Amino acid sequence: MPIGIFDSGVGGLTVYKSISKFFPDADLVYLGDCARVPYGNKSKETIIRYSLECSSYLYEKHNVDVLVVACNSASSYALDVLRNYFDIPVIGVVEPGVEAALDVSKNGKIGVIGTYATVNSNAYKRNLLDKAPDIQVFQKACPLFVPLVEEGMINHPVTYHMVKEYIQELVDKGIDTLILGCTHYPLLKGVISSVYPEIKIVDSSEVIIDKIKSIYNKKESGFRKVFLTDISPAFKKLESLLLENSKMEKIELSELCKI
Amino acid sequence: MPIGIFDSGVGGLTVYKSISKFFPDADLVYLGDCARVPYGNKSKETIIRYSLECSSYLYEKHNVDVLVVACNSASSYALDVLRNYFDIPVIGVVEPGVEAALDVSKNGKIGVIGTYATVNSNAYKRNLLDKAPDIQVFQKACPLFVPLVEEGMINHPVTYHMVKEYIQELVDKGIDTLILGCTHYPLLKGVISSVYPEIKIVDSSEVIIDKIKSIYNKKESGFRKVFLTDISPAFKKLESLLLENSKMEKIELSELCKI
Repeated sequence: MPIGIFDSGVGGLTVYKSISKFFPDADLVYLGDCARVPYGNKSKETIIRYSLECSSYLYEKHNVDVLVVACNSASSYALDVLRNYFDIPVIGVVEPGVEAALDVSKNGKIGVIGTYATVNSNAYKRNLLDKAPDIQVFQKACPLFVPLVEEGMINHPVTYHMVKEYIQELVDKGIDTLILGCTHYPLLKGVISSVYPEIKIVDSSEVIIDKIKSIYNKKESGFRKVFLTDISPAFKKLESLLLENSKMEKIELSELCKI
Repeated sequence: MPIGIFDSGVGGLTVYKSISKFFPDADLVYLGDCARVPYGNKSKETIIRYSLECSSYLYEKHNVDVLVVACNSASSYALDVLRNYFDIPVIGVVEPGVEAALDVSKNGKIGVIGTYATVNSNAYKRNLLDKAPDIQVFQKACPLFVPLVEEGMINHPVTYHMVKEYIQELVDKGIDTLILGCTHYPLLKGVISSVYPEIKIVDSSEVIIDKIKSIYNKKESGFRKVFLTDISPAFKKLESLLLENSKMEKIELSELCKI
């Protein structure tokens, strides 16, 4: 019974890689919906439908035992629906990120950055305030970060400019902790830390591991399967995240289970 | 018998608006595939499949008489397939752009900017050299332009920085004409012209009109219908392009005709 992981594209391979490292004996099946990437610019309704289709594919065709939603937009909008729909544990990136942020923040002022979908959903904010009603949460959508990362412009002056433009207003509010609410953002951790060395950064792709540890403790054969709905140019840039022993296969959109 | 127009999203509404203005009596049906936007980051195979699905929807369900492919990525990869498949005229943005550029260039050095898909397809370059083998063509993918336009960052310092970073190398090659090979780029015309006032700019959304004039000359009732596969946040920003008298409707992806 493998762990199933899905993402809107190949960004979630960062999460896949973390899980693979911490659970070397677990069977892993990753689905990247590259044919419809990104999800962050779609409507709530469409994000929920795509998330159901991806999850059903992993559940029905690969009998996954645990479902990891690596995409922040999908975690923000579709998690409750997925939990109602499937009788297996469903783990998103939002809750682990929230718990880690509450752990490390000293002053109770927490920043959240992500796509429009993630920020507009208020999923992080709601979760943070549910657990700690007295804290203050400041959110900011950073729509240029994904294209900048995908272009490999990590150390480019434009990236520094945009880091300051997006994050300074959160820093001005007094945040001591910043949640990276998008699978692409961990690659900007170095730039953000160099501009704001005093801010503690929470990376969801790391903290999700503890959540999985709490419910998954199986020894399997350790196979690694990656399914993509399109072999897009972006995939070629991130191919190295696939790991040596992964079997990769393209599937048609029509193979996803319609709901 | 209406004119059918399709695009990967709402960017093609610039083309729809031009056509609407020049053909007030024509019936127009626009399809924006917002549920899978953008096409420019997908594989050739996927772009062709989506283009066939969108075109079949317009052809079979709306009996369009002429098919206008407003998306540069789709025009670059799918035009020959669509022409083989449908027995109606199929007009893309590439050929009109090529003809206009050859008309205005004095020194035969032409620049082309677009998404990775459009540039990698070499559709503009091939078409230009087919018609004028002695000219020189210089291409550059400008992947940050679409997010910058979608963010409304037209007059932002980062946009000026990226205009110089992308286009200076074409200017250094001596181009006197630049083809804007993406429906979003006309909104950057002002910035590009202010940095490079000596360069003549060819905007495909304008030049496509002459092509349509050459084959379409009907008086219809002048209805305007817009179908979108998702009502995404980006649509709300460009809603004003829809024009007052357009009837807008959301359709499900499953309503597109599968091929």
